[in-house]
Amino acid sequence: MIKLQKKTVDAIAAGKLEKGDVLQAAALSTIQGAKRAWELIPLCHPLRLDSVKPEVTLGQDEVKIRCTVTARERTGVEMESLMAVTMGLLTVWDMVKTLEKDAAGQYPVTRITEVEVEEKRVDRGC
Amino acid sequence: MIKLQKKTVDAIAAGKLEKGDVLQAAALSTIQGAKRAWELIPLCHPLRLDSVKPEVTLGQDEVKIRCTVTARERTGVEMESLMAVTMGLLTVWDMVKTLEKDAAGQYPVTRITEVEVEEKRVDRGC
Amino acid sequence: MIKLQKKTVDAIAAGKLEKGDVLQAAALSTIQGAKRAWELIPLCHPLRLDSVKPEVTLGQDEVKIRCTVTARERTGVEMESLMAVTMGLLTVWDMVKTLEKDAAGQYPVTRITEVEVEEKRVDRGC
Amino acid sequence: MIKLQKKTVDAIAAGKLEKGDVLQAAALSTIQGAKRAWELIPLCHPLRLDSVKPEVTLGQDEVKIRCTVTARERTGVEMESLMAVTMGLLTVWDMVKTLEKDAAGQYPVTRITEVEVEEKRVDRGC
Amino acid sequence: MIKLQKKTVDAIAAGKLEKGDVLQAAALSTIQGAKRAWELIPLCHPLRLDSVKPEVTLGQDEVKIRCTVTARERTGVEMESLMAVTMGLLTVWDMVKTLEKDAAGQYPVTRITEVEVEEKRVDRGC
Amino acid sequence: MIKLQKKTVDAIAAGKLEKGDVLQAAALSTIQGAKRAWELIPLCHPLRLDSVKPEVTLGQDEVKIRCTVTARERTGVEMESLMAVTMGLLTVWDMVKTLEKDAAGQYPVTRITEVEVEEKRVDRGC
Repeated sequence: MIKLQKKTVDAIAAGKLEKGDVLQAAALSTIQGAKRAWELIPLCHPLRLDSVKPEVTLGQDEVKIRCTVTARERTGVEMESLMAVTMGLLTVWDMVKTLEKDAAGQYPVTRITEVEVEEKRVDRGC
Repeated sequence: MIKLQKKTVDAIAAGKLEKGDVLQAAALSTIQGAKRAWELIPLCHPLRLDSVKPEVTLGQDEVKIRCTVTARERTGVEMESLMAVTMGLLTVWDMVKTLEKDAAGQYPVTRITEVEVEEKRVDRGC
Repeated sequence: MIKLQKKTVDAIAAGKLEKGDVLQAAALSTIQGAKRAWELIPLCHPLRLDSVKPEVTLGQDEVKIRCTVTARERTGVEMESLMAVTMGLLTVWDMVKTLEKDAAGQYPVTRITEVEVEEKRVDRGC
Repeated sequence: MIKLQKKTVDAIAAGKLEKGDVLQAAALSTIQGAKRAWELIPLCHPLRLDSVKPEVTLGQDEVKIRCTVTARERTGVEMESLMAVTMGLLTVWDMVKTLEKDAAGQYPVTRITEVEVEEKRVDRGC
Repeated sequence: MIKLQKKTVDAIAAGKLEKGDVLQAAALSTIQGAKRAWELIPLCHPLRLDSVKPEVTLGQDEVKIRCTVTARERTGVEMESLMAVTMGLLTVWDMVKTLEKDAAGQYPVTRITEVEVEEKRVDRGC
Repeated sequence: MIKLQKKTVDAIAAGKLEKGDVLQAAALSTIQGAKRAWELIPLCHPLRLDSVKPEVTLGQDEVKIRCTVTARERTGVEMESLMAVTMGLLTVWDMVKTLEKDAAGQYPVTRITEVEVEEKRVDRGC
C-alpha cells in the first residue's frame, strides 16, 4: 500500500486531480509491471502470464493495490505480482506528488509499505 | 527495506547464496531502476541523471537500500530514486526466494516496507 | 482518428466497457508513444521533450486523438507526436475489440485513418 | 498506407534517398512492431508469434504495407499486425521527411490512412 | 569484424540472401545499438548523441563495421560505439546463419573478432 | 573474450575496482543479453529459454565468458548465447575503462575477440 495524507485520498476519490484518474492509471501500470518484471529483475525469465488482475482500492489515508497473476508455468509468479503492485504504487505516488509535498518540498507522510505476497497457489493438476 | 528471516540475512552475509552476490546484484538493479523510471511510470519523462549512488546494507533481519540521485533538472528526481530502491529490493527478494519460502511455499515474513523519500534537495543556483 | 461503430462510441461515452476507461488509457498510451518513438523508429534519436499533451475526443462514430509535443531541440518533434497519436489509437482499438468484431470475427468498420501533422512550429528565439 | 508526394515515391523507387533504403527499413520496423506490440499497448500480453511477414509496396503516390502475422495462440494477433504496419508506415515517414516538408516546414500531403485488419483467420484445428 | 565463409560474402555482395539486405540491416542495428547501450550496460547512462554513422563494408571473407559516434558530453562515447558495431555484427551473423552452418549445424568459421576502439577524440573547446 | 592489460586483470582478481565486482556484473549482463537478444537483433523472435548459464573466468591478460543457453524450441539459440557473451564482455570493458585507457585516452590493448559458437546441440527427442 501507499500511505497518503487524507486530503490526497479525498482528492483522488473526488476525481479532482490535475494529472487524471489515479486509480485507473495505477491499474494500467500494475499490469505493465507484471508484464515487464523479467526486464528489470536480473534473474527473472519472461513467463507466459495467463491473467493479470489488478484491484486498486482507496482507504482512509492510503491506496491499496492487490494483483492476482496466474500462469501455467513451472515457475511461480510472485515476482511478477510484486513488480506489478510496486509499479502501481509508484504511479500513484507520481500522480499525487503535488498534493503530498509540504512547503519545504519534502514528503512527511508518503511511503510505500507492506508489499507482500498474500498467497501463492500451485495447482499441480496442470 | 525488505524484511527477511534472520537465517536469510546470515546467508547473504556469508556469501553463501546459490544465485550469487545479493548485495551487488541489488546495487546494479537499483541503478537500472533509476535509469528506467520514465519507462514504467506513465507521466515521468526521461531526465538527465548526473549520478545514481546506491547503498545496500544488511541489518539484523533486513536489507536496506538507499539511493541518492542527482540531476541538473527543473524536475525533481524523487520518482527515479523511489524506482531505484524498489527495483533493488525486488531483486533481493528474487535472489533469496528459496530461503524465504516456507514448507507450504508461502512467505510468512518477507515484505517490502518503509519505502520513502528521505530528503529532497534543490540547489537553486543551478 | 479511429473509425468505429456508433454503438462502440456510445459504449465508450457511457463508460460501460469491461476493459476500463478507454479515453484515459488512450491518453496514457499517447504520452508513452511520444516518449518511446526513438526506440521503434530506426533513425530517430531520443529528444528531450518539454511537454506532451494528449487530447482524446469522441465523435459520432470515431475517436480523435491530437497530441501537442514541445521541445527545445534542433530537431522537430513530428515523429514523436505521430507515434504518440498512433499508440493512442491502437490502444483504443485494443480496448474496443470485442464490440467492433462481427460474428465472423472480422472488422468491417474499424480503421485508423487521417493520421497527419496538423501543424509544426519552430520558435527560432530558443 | 502512407500518402506521399509523387516526387517522394519516385525518389524511393530510384533508391536515391540519403537516409537509405526506405522499403527495407520499413520492413524491418514492421517486424519489430509486431514483436513489441505488447510493450506499448497496455492490455496486450506477449504472444508467441510463429511468423511475421511484411510486404512493402510502392504505389503512385503512396507506400502500402501489409503484414501477415501467425501464431498458435488462443488470442488473436490483430493488434500485433496493426502495430506492425503502423511502425512500418511511421518509419517511411521518418525517412522521407525532408522531401515531404514544404517551404514552411509543413506536411500538406503526407498522412497515414486506411490502417485496417484485412482478414482475421482462426484455424480451430490447432 | 565478423569472419565468414567466402561463399557467404559472395552471396551478400550479390544480394541473394533470403533474409534481405544484410548490409543495410546491419547499419540499422548499428545505430540502434548506439542508442540503447545504456539499457544493457549496467553503469552506462543515457547520453545525448549528436550523430551515429555506421560504415558496413565487405571484405574477402568478412564483414567489417565501423561506427563513429559524436556527442557534446562530459563522458566519452566509446561504449556506445562498441555496442553499436557489436549489434551490427550480431545482426550480420543472424542473417547469414543458414549459409554459415555446416552439415552438423556447427559454425566452423564464423566468429566476431577485433572489436576495438580505433580512436577516441575529445574536443575540449566544447 | 576481451583482451586486457595484465594490470587490469590483476586489479579485477584483487577485487580492487572502484566500479565494483566485475565478474558478477558481467555474469548478470550476460544473462540479460540472452533474455533481450530478440529486441536488438531484427529477425530474432523471443524464445522461451529454459536456462542461461554464464561462466566468467579470468586469464592472464583476458576475461573469458562462456554462456550455455538451453531451450525447448524449434529454433536454435545461438543468437541468444552470442548476444549474452557480447553483453558480458562489453560490461567488463565499461567497468575497467579507467585502467585500460592510456595517457592519451586511447585503448592500445583492449579488444573483444574470438566470439564464436563453441557448440550447438539439438536433442531431437524433445
